[in-house]
Amino acid sequence: MQRIAIDMDEVLADTAAHQLAWYERDFGPGLTMADLHGKHFHTLVPEAHRSRIREHLHHPAFFRDIPLMPGAVDAIRTLSSRFEIFVASAAMEHPVSFTSKYEWLREHFPDIAPSHCVFCGDKSVLGVDYLIDDSPYQLVRFRGEPIIFSAPHNVHETRFRRVEDWPDAVAQLMGTP
Amino acid sequence: MQRIAIDMDEVLADTAAHQLAWYERDFGPGLTMADLHGKHFHTLVPEAHRSRIREHLHHPAFFRDIPLMPGAVDAIRTLSSRFEIFVASAAMEHPVSFTSKYEWLREHFPDIAPSHCVFCGDKSVLGVDYLIDDSPYQLVRFRGEPIIFSAPHNVHETRFRRVEDWPDAVAQLMGTP
Repeated sequence: MQRIAIDMDEVLADTAAHQLAWYERDFGPGLTMADLHGKHFHTLVPEAHRSRIREHLHHPAFFRDIPLMPGAVDAIRTLSSRFEIFVASAAMEHPVSFTSKYEWLREHFPDIAPSHCVFCGDKSVLGVDYLIDDSPYQLVRFRGEPIIFSAPHNVHETRFRRVEDWPDAVAQLMGTP
Repeated sequence: MQRIAIDMDEVLADTAAHQLAWYERDFGPGLTMADLHGKHFHTLVPEAHRSRIREHLHHPAFFRDIPLMPGAVDAIRTLSSRFEIFVASAAMEHPVSFTSKYEWLREHFPDIAPSHCVFCGDKSVLGVDYLIDDSPYQLVRFRGEPIIFSAPHNVHETRFRRVEDWPDAVAQLMGTP
């Protein structure tokens, strides 16, 4: 059985939407998802707000109640019939997030066994067939077939096979376009 | 450069000694390392003590002040000149331990980058050349060359290339027996 590793932030979890929500809570409305197109979140906010959005990412609660990416639960269920699924998160970037991320995974994806949850900063260590990730940094290092999951910040990236969303990922990977 | 993944408990960290120390603190002296030969810790203690030793392993502080395995720091420094080193711990067995384990690694092995610290329950996911681990369960699944690190509980295991301790591991892996 072929094996897929799947990233959490901006792939299983709608991290960008959650960042916007926390930003709005602190600084009021103004930014929208459309503003994020082709950009990284921190480059869009005033210099004076950047330390605050870094604090959000290092807040233990931030990752606990992140919304699901639309279609993720159904997609993982479908893909599980043909692939062995690992979730691989670069949680080492935010060590306070380990427990929140793990609890979030157990809540939303109870069928993914604890043994198949991986925290690793460098996904080149994964010996699996596919990696679905939004991060060009991780995809370029990965030794299997990299698949980029569309996120606002990566829309201009052309080096990888791309899936637009979870229905597209299922269609491509299950061989039913 | 070839890559080695190295387990934490009973390999970089002297977990058995720490379990004995915590056990003695609760129940007084009696057990020694010699008693552990060929056995798992929990099988050695009276039935009535077993829930308490399980609690130790699920206590967030347990993994924070575990002693180093003798020679581990020097060995990792030496091996780093010839191999790319990852630390891979099956922390998913004890999710409260993530942060303690990570802090312990950063304290004792500051030269191992956060990107090279991996938490994974099933080490078959690692795409590296060698795995040094005390656990036959993990070694038998691993897809590279498994190397068993001697621990009291695995002395009767014969399926894997064995290193007795860190000086032996360095001698074998650096090619200078």
